[in-house]
Amino acid sequence: MTSSAYDVLGIGNAIVDILARTDDAFLTAQGMTKGSMTLIDEARATGIYSAMGPAVEVSGGSAANTIVGVADFGARGAFVGKVKNDTLGGVFIHDIRAAKVSFDTAAATDGPATACSYILVTPDGERTMNTYLGAAQNLHPNDIDAAQIAASAIVYLEGYLWDPKDAKDAFLKASSVAHGAGRMVALTLSDAFCVGRYRDEFLELMRKRTVDLVFANEAELTSLYETADFDAALAQLRKDAKLGVVTRSEKGCVVISGDETEAVPAFPVEKVVDTTGAGDLFAAGFLFGLVRGAGLKQAGQLGTLAAAEIIQHIGARPQTSLKALAQAKGLLP
Amino acid sequence: MTSSAYDVLGIGNAIVDILARTDDAFLTAQGMTKGSMTLIDEARATGIYSAMGPAVEVSGGSAANTIVGVADFGARGAFVGKVKNDTLGGVFIHDIRAAKVSFDTAAATDGPATACSYILVTPDGERTMNTYLGAAQNLHPNDIDAAQIAASAIVYLEGYLWDPKDAKDAFLKASSVAHGAGRMVALTLSDAFCVGRYRDEFLELMRKRTVDLVFANEAELTSLYETADFDAALAQLRKDAKLGVVTRSEKGCVVISGDETEAVPAFPVEKVVDTTGAGDLFAAGFLFGLVRGAGLKQAGQLGTLAAAEIIQHIGARPQTSLKALAQAKGLLP
Repeated sequence: MTSSAYDVLGIGNAIVDILARTDDAFLTAQGMTKGSMTLIDEARATGIYSAMGPAVEVSGGSAANTIVGVADFGARGAFVGKVKNDTLGGVFIHDIRAAKVSFDTAAATDGPATACSYILVTPDGERTMNTYLGAAQNLHPNDIDAAQIAASAIVYLEGYLWDPKDAKDAFLKASSVAHGAGRMVALTLSDAFCVGRYRDEFLELMRKRTVDLVFANEAELTSLYETADFDAALAQLRKDAKLGVVTRSEKGCVVISGDETEAVPAFPVEKVVDTTGAGDLFAAGFLFGLVRGAGLKQAGQLGTLAAAEIIQHIGARPQTSLKALAQAKGLLP
Repeated sequence: MTSSAYDVLGIGNAIVDILARTDDAFLTAQGMTKGSMTLIDEARATGIYSAMGPAVEVSGGSAANTIVGVADFGARGAFVGKVKNDTLGGVFIHDIRAAKVSFDTAAATDGPATACSYILVTPDGERTMNTYLGAAQNLHPNDIDAAQIAASAIVYLEGYLWDPKDAKDAFLKASSVAHGAGRMVALTLSDAFCVGRYRDEFLELMRKRTVDLVFANEAELTSLYETADFDAALAQLRKDAKLGVVTRSEKGCVVISGDETEAVPAFPVEKVVDTTGAGDLFAAGFLFGLVRGAGLKQAGQLGTLAAAEIIQHIGARPQTSLKALAQAKGLLP
């Protein structure tokens, strides 16, 4: 394998999050499934926005959050995703570049607006997402720069990309190019309902080794294997993925690879404010650990540390230097 | 005095804040005066935005923040200010209405974009603001609805309004209408440099009783009277304002009215994250206390409580119910 220009390149939906605090009654009244991500159209977006409380706008997008986290730890990140050249597109571009992530996907000049996700945060810190994909759904295989992919040590893909149709092809092209260059391909299953929509395709991606490393939380894992038995699902994952990482909220994470198993506890958190981005930032810490040659246990610790930072404030982009945090905890020199 | 439709009506610049963490070196490199508000043009806005780190967008505007705070305490608030009908204008309108504040000023359909303030927050929590006034500067006396002003128990004006030229006339019209209806008019001096620009005019507003209640922080007060002697400045304020309220950061506030003086300590705060909106939310608590018939001391306590809430997170809009907070502290039944 040749040297890489990027440590981790992410491909995902380029989204600006619009976050508001709410209560469970609002979710019920709006017919929302707590903790899930639902795709919505423009009319529904307008309806939700009118009904929801005062909000805060923060750049988001699952893989984008992860790559910003990777860069914040001090690694070289790149992101591929589609915005429109509108106000929120400008916000997304500014924020990801200001985070020192390479981002060069051409913005759409017509068609739907930059994607946004209306995220309702309940007092328990749980987030419920309603995503208008807008321009993000027009990510196309032509947006994939083969040379850039081949120059990235790890290519990281979000399961949410399986919703927009051209993005799926972009995803497959990237995996093929990455593997051709001897790189590792990682996938997050993203959301239990997303797994419900694409279970067979995700299993095929794993079994055919289109992806090598799979991130999942408990709900996504048990949805994937349609079982309530966590250990049984984990045993299946061990067979299907070269490397599997399962996050378990306050129970930390379990990393499996062949016969190897590492369970890593969660970092203690004073108060969970907003879980938006918890999985994304876990992946950031873990991937950063991998590219820096850390063992699975230390990579898991970096993941749980980054997740702990992100859930203590609103929004899925770090508000504290992850590198400094890891150094303070003795996880980095 | 007849009954009122609104407890407090605020008139101010309608602004969306774009907040980013930074360090002192960045402020120095950019030639910014720490802790101040500087007016910038579009080119400078673009330059600052390109140079600054990843940001968060939150509705702001000094008087708007205050009125949102008043409404959050449970009183009836109204706001008058100018946005354009663009994306950030939509954000401002959504957020203020979602906070249950009455807001009906017609948005501009052409001319400059909705105002935004690039706010740099240093590790000590201090904020340095660079404001592109855009559409806000086109607030006009015609935007002042005399019937609405006359129906508001207190009219609250921000000193920043003295920068845009038509807004000044809107301000004077509102004061005249309010006094004609037997209402109280309050003014915040806003910023020490703003006071430096308009010292004589602000003193005239006070001495001619165009305003009855004046809010200032220590820097604004000493700038107003061009003295480093706080007590001397306070003695002057006692003569010039019917009611004066001076905020002193971690020393709390001093309220003066004729011979009366009430010093109120600050609420203890675990960690100052971002002081953006501290003065605005102090004014919210104080004004809420006044309209609810609280004494000067209790009004001051409500002010320091609201200020304590706002400085513990990013942005100048409350993230916790101020009413519930005041109830928990025994300040409200």
